[in-house]
Amino acid sequence: MAAASPIKVGIVGGTGYTGVELLRLLAQHPQVQLTAITSRKEDGMPVAQMFPNLRGRVDLSFKTPEAAPLDQCDVVFFATPHGVAMSQAQALLDAGVRIIDLAADFRLQDTAKFEQWYKMPHACPQILKDSVYGLVELNGDRVRNARVVGNPGCYPTTVILGLLPLLEGGRKLIDTAHIIADCKSGVSGAGRKAEVGTLFSEASDNFKAYGVAGHRHHPEISEQLDRIAGERVGLIFVPHLVPMIRGMFSTLYARILPEAMDTDFQALFEKRYADEPFVDVMPSGSMPETRSVRASNYLRIAVHRPEGGDQLVILVVQDNLVKGASGQAIQNMNLMFGLPASTGLEHIAVLP
Amino acid sequence: MAAASPIKVGIVGGTGYTGVELLRLLAQHPQVQLTAITSRKEDGMPVAQMFPNLRGRVDLSFKTPEAAPLDQCDVVFFATPHGVAMSQAQALLDAGVRIIDLAADFRLQDTAKFEQWYKMPHACPQILKDSVYGLVELNGDRVRNARVVGNPGCYPTTVILGLLPLLEGGRKLIDTAHIIADCKSGVSGAGRKAEVGTLFSEASDNFKAYGVAGHRHHPEISEQLDRIAGERVGLIFVPHLVPMIRGMFSTLYARILPEAMDTDFQALFEKRYADEPFVDVMPSGSMPETRSVRASNYLRIAVHRPEGGDQLVILVVQDNLVKGASGQAIQNMNLMFGLPASTGLEHIAVLP
Amino acid sequence: MAAASPIKVGIVGGTGYTGVELLRLLAQHPQVQLTAITSRKEDGMPVAQMFPNLRGRVDLSFKTPEAAPLDQCDVVFFATPHGVAMSQAQALLDAGVRIIDLAADFRLQDTAKFEQWYKMPHACPQILKDSVYGLVELNGDRVRNARVVGNPGCYPTTVILGLLPLLEGGRKLIDTAHIIADCKSGVSGAGRKAEVGTLFSEASDNFKAYGVAGHRHHPEISEQLDRIAGERVGLIFVPHLVPMIRGMFSTLYARILPEAMDTDFQALFEKRYADEPFVDVMPSGSMPETRSVRASNYLRIAVHRPEGGDQLVILVVQDNLVKGASGQAIQNMNLMFGLPASTGLEHIAVLP
Amino acid sequence: MAAASPIKVGIVGGTGYTGVELLRLLAQHPQVQLTAITSRKEDGMPVAQMFPNLRGRVDLSFKTPEAAPLDQCDVVFFATPHGVAMSQAQALLDAGVRIIDLAADFRLQDTAKFEQWYKMPHACPQILKDSVYGLVELNGDRVRNARVVGNPGCYPTTVILGLLPLLEGGRKLIDTAHIIADCKSGVSGAGRKAEVGTLFSEASDNFKAYGVAGHRHHPEISEQLDRIAGERVGLIFVPHLVPMIRGMFSTLYARILPEAMDTDFQALFEKRYADEPFVDVMPSGSMPETRSVRASNYLRIAVHRPEGGDQLVILVVQDNLVKGASGQAIQNMNLMFGLPASTGLEHIAVLP
Repeated sequence: MAAASPIKVGIVGGTGYTGVELLRLLAQHPQVQLTAITSRKEDGMPVAQMFPNLRGRVDLSFKTPEAAPLDQCDVVFFATPHGVAMSQAQALLDAGVRIIDLAADFRLQDTAKFEQWYKMPHACPQILKDSVYGLVELNGDRVRNARVVGNPGCYPTTVILGLLPLLEGGRKLIDTAHIIADCKSGVSGAGRKAEVGTLFSEASDNFKAYGVAGHRHHPEISEQLDRIAGERVGLIFVPHLVPMIRGMFSTLYARILPEAMDTDFQALFEKRYADEPFVDVMPSGSMPETRSVRASNYLRIAVHRPEGGDQLVILVVQDNLVKGASGQAIQNMNLMFGLPASTGLEHIAVLP
Repeated sequence: MAAASPIKVGIVGGTGYTGVELLRLLAQHPQVQLTAITSRKEDGMPVAQMFPNLRGRVDLSFKTPEAAPLDQCDVVFFATPHGVAMSQAQALLDAGVRIIDLAADFRLQDTAKFEQWYKMPHACPQILKDSVYGLVELNGDRVRNARVVGNPGCYPTTVILGLLPLLEGGRKLIDTAHIIADCKSGVSGAGRKAEVGTLFSEASDNFKAYGVAGHRHHPEISEQLDRIAGERVGLIFVPHLVPMIRGMFSTLYARILPEAMDTDFQALFEKRYADEPFVDVMPSGSMPETRSVRASNYLRIAVHRPEGGDQLVILVVQDNLVKGASGQAIQNMNLMFGLPASTGLEHIAVLP
Repeated sequence: MAAASPIKVGIVGGTGYTGVELLRLLAQHPQVQLTAITSRKEDGMPVAQMFPNLRGRVDLSFKTPEAAPLDQCDVVFFATPHGVAMSQAQALLDAGVRIIDLAADFRLQDTAKFEQWYKMPHACPQILKDSVYGLVELNGDRVRNARVVGNPGCYPTTVILGLLPLLEGGRKLIDTAHIIADCKSGVSGAGRKAEVGTLFSEASDNFKAYGVAGHRHHPEISEQLDRIAGERVGLIFVPHLVPMIRGMFSTLYARILPEAMDTDFQALFEKRYADEPFVDVMPSGSMPETRSVRASNYLRIAVHRPEGGDQLVILVVQDNLVKGASGQAIQNMNLMFGLPASTGLEHIAVLP
Repeated sequence: MAAASPIKVGIVGGTGYTGVELLRLLAQHPQVQLTAITSRKEDGMPVAQMFPNLRGRVDLSFKTPEAAPLDQCDVVFFATPHGVAMSQAQALLDAGVRIIDLAADFRLQDTAKFEQWYKMPHACPQILKDSVYGLVELNGDRVRNARVVGNPGCYPTTVILGLLPLLEGGRKLIDTAHIIADCKSGVSGAGRKAEVGTLFSEASDNFKAYGVAGHRHHPEISEQLDRIAGERVGLIFVPHLVPMIRGMFSTLYARILPEAMDTDFQALFEKRYADEPFVDVMPSGSMPETRSVRASNYLRIAVHRPEGGDQLVILVVQDNLVKGASGQAIQNMNLMFGLPASTGLEHIAVLP
């Protein structure tokens, strides 16, 4: 590829886990020049002091948003709390900068739902309307031309990619009124905020469900599934917390319709993702493990049908910080700047 | 309190995790006298040398089965691989000894199923017929008079107790043809055998499913659910491995029948278990955690109905080595010897 | 057994890990009546709601200090930040209440050192003077009559008990100018405060040292060692953080003096602790593990002398929340109220 | 660099953790062509089936040593048990193949010591004599021309690099008769063998020492330290097991000689390693963490002198599988084939 000049990249936020993961991946990306990173609170601190894995590799320091040359970047990633990207989007767009938001500001087209779940009105509905939901395997063509990308949530990435072949194209394969997503996430998904519930002594050697009564990723998943299926899809979504740092495992249950009992589901999935470099449909009978994708951008899927019955069990694994966040964001960037999707993202998973 | 004379207890096997857990609990039981423990391989070794937590508290040594005075015990626990208890049961019964088997020999009344899953013919079908499935909350009255008890498997304990109020008494509350049990277990459930898959470096910082194509606890659960419901119950059972030592979490999904939409499920569960000392139906909306029962005999249940819809989500936690194995075995012993069910089992869970 | 009437116990603080551990142990103590627990912040909340392991076993709710009947207690435990106990001590003493402080207020007799390390003047030097450092194996006789006990820190408990036989009685066995204590603690030692450094995603799968330049437990250890040895003892103390919840492991290095090369150190330790119910001097060559004392009040010591040379290596393990904090506090209470030291503390360690 | 043709690489063994780590790193190395991998036991199995992180990235299958084209390789790595490399070395050398052994066969020049610790005579003392101890920072020049490299053990790498600046060049800075190395390793250091002691349920939530009476890495460290110092160095070496997968932390204690009290140790270390790409001397006062090097080839050192006294405390961290094994082996390969030391090894550590 060897584009003439590198992509100048800025990061707003960047003191959390998606931030350090962006830095780790971008610092090793052959076509990127890290140009600016902002944090009002950490103004002046070298990023390598906060994240010692970057020592000797990233020499940027955090700057205030005012002092950082964001408007001279080609693209800015927002690794910020919800609500920040939408407040700064217009100014950056006016300066010709493209935007990839890792928070939720550009994920939900339904602004009423956004307001209900994120407790704030949407600041720029017009920009939202032109933005693209950055699930590359679903919206790759639109991402290429997008000026604003809403990077998908971690749970939605696994659930949507795990159900996509069953729903798209008007297929009538499963009972779409009663899908179950029993999902399990490593603790880093909760972020780097100081909170009692994610302390080592609370989360270690423990397992629990949370958000059974409602989780912000539920409307995001539902909006996409409805669009893909062309109808209202009924979904029960139960997230759980696993005592591991990285990794997400989704167990999806769907009942096969009587008229679809002869479908070759394994072939359906393999065909759908044959050209996707980061979606690995494993051989029939496989048992994916989260460590098989640790620190990599791969997502692996196994299709099961216990005893050949009427119930599909789809197993999906990813690293929540890579394919579920920062890696996927860079995958979006690659498309937006005409690079192959896998540029700078071909790290092999770390096992053990 | 039946103080007269203590119960003389023998343990066959005892070098695994259910064995050391039996020892920990029995050594603190006010009505028990540990009398014999056998291991052919470890003959002569003090148990406190193998399990240093017992130093100063248990001074027994392992003996060969031939040398151990098992026939002088009041009750013998089998903490052995499947197949051992049934080969020794008749001789012990002839000596007037009662038997509690922590393996599978006396769990399945269907000997064809037993042979299919455990790859051996049943050695004593007549004794099996008279044995009792030792789920106290289901079969308490029969346990009291049992001479042989098959102690339930860990997964079955959570799934059966989590569904029991919905199925018993001929109730028509849920779609019994399509129940889903998405279960998660700590690694100690795999035992103390040296195997690559349960090495720290394999199982830590990782999450995976296993046995999707079939698991030995599936027929055990099904046999009990069928009996309770009085009909064939359809169950999808997917076990997963959690990187924690102890703990089991079962997420059960059942669809409510149209005619049962007005049921007060919370009240149903509370009433069913009101008199059970070890089953805690938590308040509506609760999120049980496995650590809330760590090293204790409690099992906690929370009943959820997301958005008041037609889907029940039942969350069940237990310590797989206590209520799911050794604690439940002692609970059975207590009933068999006329003691209150909770004698010697009232340890409060260890948190954090 | 002093059965007459139970000891009425109050707890100030109690929302942290030493608090819940006190509650777990006291609720199972045969001679204790839990009477009051205070937390200004959590006023009105049932303790079993904050700590679900206590459900069904402890029905107290947190009250404000003003509303709690602390002055009607026989003894009050302070499981509070440093500085609280000393501000409330006089009033309680005036009401005839005895005090056991799990913080540092009554550990250091040297008030200048206290002020230097805890950044506050001591509020009641006279009460401090009459208080007793509650290391039972060192000060048992004085504890029996104490009205105020300063419960030792977790690190000091392991280091002092690991060196005591070498130093007391004016013995000249080791080079007391150059002792090294390389100590390792589980994360619960850092408490239940919400801090980034002890988040699961920071502390898990990681190992680090901390406090090399200075740690509050250093002056506490030194004050005791100096007193025991009758001279100034030189100590290098390096604490480390281990990715486990509970457990403390101290590796102590001491050089044997030329004139003491013939000493039988194993016998020296065994004799010293022969009558101590909670100090286990393991057989020569033993390798103690922290899990061998998990959730129990035992502390185990192994004495090594590699290749028979001039260097002693003493290995000490304890559960930092039990023998290192709440269990030791109850051991002190037992002595203060004429009970055997082990009453209510005989829980066997939980393994695995 | 872009050498004309890639380096053809073979791996003997490769079913363990150093093997899969070699594969992960070599598959991403820009100058390497993976040519053969052997395992008699796994003959025919695709490596990506055993190690699913390699799916889609490595398409080799294990072959028997006889069937694998090892003699057509430029270099062969031995990731085998001790004793294998020395039995096959001569044949490979005769075929013009260079050898890097990750086991111990070419680490100890003292064959008597080798035989004492590894319980086998050395099979090729002459080849051993010409081999080079592959600690690049110590022996870089000799490695360049070596035909056989003995890759250092994990513990020795940290201890030697942590002491090297203090000992080399005939310096008289510390008491070389009494150095203490208190070392802590993640569990992957024990390898992928099925053993009870490294099961998750044994090693998790636990901390212990091992090998206090003697460890194979002790003579290896001593041989190198003696050579560097030009005198006999006295070392106490106590390894411990940490419940984490990867990572090694060594705390080194050395007493400063009276005549060296004015030394600027920080400067000494910084200068020594100024040109080493993988040794990071951190700023004064730093606290290195193992996660700061996780899955990377970096080793970080912090030099402490508590209270400015006469005791140095050197803290060293590395990833035991990378700088402590497979990464260092590739660093050796790079030198042997005229590549920059860091080629293919510049992965940034994975944090969190």
